[in-house]
Amino acid sequence: MISTDQLSFDEKGLIPAVVQDEATKEVLTLAYMNKESLNKTIETGETWFYSRSRQELWHKGATSGNIQKVTEIRVDCDQDALTVFVDPAGPACHTGAVSCFYETLWESEEKPAEKEARFAIIEELESLL
Amino acid sequence: MISTDQLSFDEKGLIPAVVQDEATKEVLTLAYMNKESLNKTIETGETWFYSRSRQELWHKGATSGNIQKVTEIRVDCDQDALTVFVDPAGPACHTGAVSCFYETLWESEEKPAEKEARFAIIEELESLL
Repeated sequence: MISTDQLSFDEKGLIPAVVQDEATKEVLTLAYMNKESLNKTIETGETWFYSRSRQELWHKGATSGNIQKVTEIRVDCDQDALTVFVDPAGPACHTGAVSCFYETLWESEEKPAEKEARFAIIEELESLL
Repeated sequence: MISTDQLSFDEKGLIPAVVQDEATKEVLTLAYMNKESLNKTIETGETWFYSRSRQELWHKGATSGNIQKVTEIRVDCDQDALTVFVDPAGPACHTGAVSCFYETLWESEEKPAEKEARFAIIEELESLL
């Protein structure tokens, strides 16, 4: 296993952390950690981030109750990004949405057709049962 | 739908892009886009990034053949991060790994127990069949 000393924090002392729901694999938030918040996350087993706007440590769920229990932290091949798998007690987003990524910017035109094709298969299977 | 003009690029003109496998939801890479690479991604339907080390645009798969067809791009609640859903032609990582996040930094002690519990349920189900 790789150690936290081997991580590359950026010039502000931060590393991006992709927070993913352990069960659904949905990406909930992209947040940032400094060494201290990463250590607190590991010590407590709950997510702690560094808020770039408030410039302070931030224990996710401290006020909302929507804490995130961490099951695993992975690091990427150049040690400058993390994925944090969590079991969330509630929505990750301050808007009340499960994930902060709830808005579509662009969708492939092929996508709806693919979806239709998948539904067609399900319908075909249903008709056979 | 939100427009690309509403996005918050950082002081270097970049926005982080969490690349996720459309089918498995696995996070493949955390990469960065500038406006130009985002526009090229939308125009071509394949991922284009900005390489911070080489300081140039980078068409994923141009040399390896492992292009990533984009099905959807989502933006987060503060418009400063993207999730990019892709159908990858091959491994995302230059090491040949499916995902760049193949190394574990930390794992909860509770996790193996939970896994065991899940397997126990499957075994119980099997014994009933």
